[in-house]
Amino acid sequence: MGTLRFSKRSAQTGEQPISYYMQQGVENPRLISLAAGLVDPESLPADEVREVVAELLANPATAQTALQYGTTQGYAPLRAKIHRHLLAQDGLKPSEVGYNSDDIVVTTGSQQLLYTLGEALLDPGDIVITEAPSYFVYHGVLNSLGIRTLSVPMDHEGMCTDALEVVLARLEEAGELPRVKLIYTIDYYQNPTGLTLSLHRRRQMLELARRYSKAGRILILEDAAYRELRFSGDDLPSIKSFDRANEHVILAMTFSKPLSPGLKTGYAVLPRDLVGPLLRFKGNHDFGSSNFNQHILDRLMETGAYDRHAERLRGVYRAKRDTLLAALAEEFPEARSSMRWTRPDGGLYVWLSCPPEVATGPGSRFMEAAMREGVLYVPGVFCYVKEGAPSPPTPLPGGEGGNAPNCEARLCFGVASHDDLREAVRRLGAAARETLRGEKIAMRGFAGCKV
Amino acid sequence: MGTLRFSKRSAQTGEQPISYYMQQGVENPRLISLAAGLVDPESLPADEVREVVAELLANPATAQTALQYGTTQGYAPLRAKIHRHLLAQDGLKPSEVGYNSDDIVVTTGSQQLLYTLGEALLDPGDIVITEAPSYFVYHGVLNSLGIRTLSVPMDHEGMCTDALEVVLARLEEAGELPRVKLIYTIDYYQNPTGLTLSLHRRRQMLELARRYSKAGRILILEDAAYRELRFSGDDLPSIKSFDRANEHVILAMTFSKPLSPGLKTGYAVLPRDLVGPLLRFKGNHDFGSSNFNQHILDRLMETGAYDRHAERLRGVYRAKRDTLLAALAEEFPEARSSMRWTRPDGGLYVWLSCPPEVATGPGSRFMEAAMREGVLYVPGVFCYVKEGAPSPPTPLPGGEGGNAPNCEARLCFGVASHDDLREAVRRLGAAARETLRGEKIAMRGFAGCKV
Repeated sequence: MGTLRFSKRSAQTGEQPISYYMQQGVENPRLISLAAGLVDPESLPADEVREVVAELLANPATAQTALQYGTTQGYAPLRAKIHRHLLAQDGLKPSEVGYNSDDIVVTTGSQQLLYTLGEALLDPGDIVITEAPSYFVYHGVLNSLGIRTLSVPMDHEGMCTDALEVVLARLEEAGELPRVKLIYTIDYYQNPTGLTLSLHRRRQMLELARRYSKAGRILILEDAAYRELRFSGDDLPSIKSFDRANEHVILAMTFSKPLSPGLKTGYAVLPRDLVGPLLRFKGNHDFGSSNFNQHILDRLMETGAYDRHAERLRGVYRAKRDTLLAALAEEFPEARSSMRWTRPDGGLYVWLSCPPEVATGPGSRFMEAAMREGVLYVPGVFCYVKEGAPSPPTPLPGGEGGNAPNCEARLCFGVASHDDLREAVRRLGAAARETLRGEKIAMRGFAGCKV
Repeated sequence: MGTLRFSKRSAQTGEQPISYYMQQGVENPRLISLAAGLVDPESLPADEVREVVAELLANPATAQTALQYGTTQGYAPLRAKIHRHLLAQDGLKPSEVGYNSDDIVVTTGSQQLLYTLGEALLDPGDIVITEAPSYFVYHGVLNSLGIRTLSVPMDHEGMCTDALEVVLARLEEAGELPRVKLIYTIDYYQNPTGLTLSLHRRRQMLELARRYSKAGRILILEDAAYRELRFSGDDLPSIKSFDRANEHVILAMTFSKPLSPGLKTGYAVLPRDLVGPLLRFKGNHDFGSSNFNQHILDRLMETGAYDRHAERLRGVYRAKRDTLLAALAEEFPEARSSMRWTRPDGGLYVWLSCPPEVATGPGSRFMEAAMREGVLYVPGVFCYVKEGAPSPPTPLPGGEGGNAPNCEARLCFGVASHDDLREAVRRLGAAARETLRGEKIAMRGFAGCKV
């Protein structure tokens, strides 16, 4: 029958490394998964969606619109509501931002925005700067596009913007500034660390993007997927809110986290000159995400059900975070253990740093022990840009650079029940004891910026 | 602020030529659009969807599954039902086909299947063979990927497979067979012509794909989007049904046409060795299409509502086709006019062939007159592979080759009401009279195969 011949890009489009562990979770129901980045199942908006669907479809006019094709850019009334919603979050008036609903694009989850943005902007060999660690699924997309991904370390204030400046200066020296197109940050309750970019660094990041836009504009991709899941701490303004002329920042958000992933709808604000080119790719993908789901979301925003639900979710996740943090503190008391972890003010993730002698990666004693005990996590090493990517990361000043630490783990508190969270941590503790067997655990704090 | 720099692919990813006319339709409500390939608004399944959503979301267990993330490949129970549905259409038992539900992928409309398939299989310079005319949106996708698109003429039996054979033989002679990866056919009630590939040519196409799979496997992309909208004539077996080992045929279908485009869900059967590579791209796009919509569809198939609705739609579209054909026969009586058109047994489109002196393309006297009269159609020239595409089409034996006729039009009878269909034809008649002004109209039949 002849060999099937795949594209060249197919060879660099790998399986997500996480797939194996996800599959384990599906096949072994005894496992408690802190790996999957799903949302709390109990609080999904079943009643709210049922009510608006009943209303939408009882009226022939709205039913006919909702069940028909929509537009590539997205349902205009929904985009108008998104516009107002974004303004409200940043406490700004329409006249205080350089964008309106024509600059908003609705996508099939924010993932599709990340993808089509790459297609519209990036050529193989172009450079994207990310955080280390960062969202591993996006690294896979960048790899598939043949992009050079450089990473900048993080500390408790998020991406170290001083280190970002050093990277940009070195790239300029090396004549590589023309290849730099995008800086990627998950600036609220980051996936995977739970860390948030501080106010001062938000301003600094935008200032750097502006300053280094010498050979062409450098954009910031502000992935604010978790912003609306804030349950403690200050609400920081988006980086977008400082980008008054709508020139440098793409703000990507989603309805998946603050409402329901089943509706698979995200959205973004784009610099105006990017809207058309991106929509041409999106048109080729699907000429528009599910119009029915957009009508549901439009109605949920209209009635206020969306805001009420997000508020309720903040309570749900605050309680789950508290349970996880309390269980960790109990299982790994500071005086006797050198396990460390982040204390997120929102989102779904806690980042666990084990002592350096406890490797957490695939095949490690700790991971094997954890799977035997019945708990799954995302190995931290998956969240760092892979060596052997199209180009190895530039060695970074002072920090660990491209050498991914292999002693970290992402713990998602979104899905598991309170009891399961406690049990999962107990199992992690058992796995740690099994791994260390009386070895003295060296102290190790969370790596800070050392620029 | 620096210039925004786009990818190289961005330059070859154009606006769909149809966009301008669609926009005209939106901005001028007096226009009757036979251009947009939408579906009949009156018959959208509002009650059916409302009922299953109410049921799904009333039950906490199903609500929690439907509103949560799904899988990249698609909801397994839905895939199992699709499998049975496809078998039933071809009257086959599971043991008589080489595929099962593991070879089925659910996509964001069938458009996403076309797109990801291109990504997984095709490199710039690879060759895809299509029908002339064919689905213009797909031509845009192929152009964006840098593909050489060659086209084979059609007659009343669909793609002329004898001409396909000549094309393949010439490509082999020229040493280009290794670049040929895909033959694209819309084999039921084709978009744009309404024509159907005959039984004998279905077998012949598969035989040719097999025979010419010398330098690697040649696949057939069988786009059967309109199959379930059959309202007269025999139900022909799919090409896929002859591909017993599941090696050569990708069968792409959609819920958009026989149910609702608003749910934006399609599906495909793939040769098994293609499933993994395609899903890696789809994972990067969105890690799964709307799970909520897949649950709705699963329930509609379960209850039989889907089949009942498709049956109802066949009646709706049969009546609309009859109205359009009767109006055309009245407006352009055969004895006095050399307007010719197809008589589709299903689908949404009639293909109108004007006499050669009536150009129908953008800027033509006829199109301008039609817009003044208040009727929109898709200029036939849009449906032919563009000259100046990555590579010009190979001149074809005897036929019109790459010289796209400029005197044709796609008329969609899906959206307009019966009254509007009659009025639209009256306006087309007025436009034709205005264009011809007493010129003698030459007779011209629908172009046949002249191999």
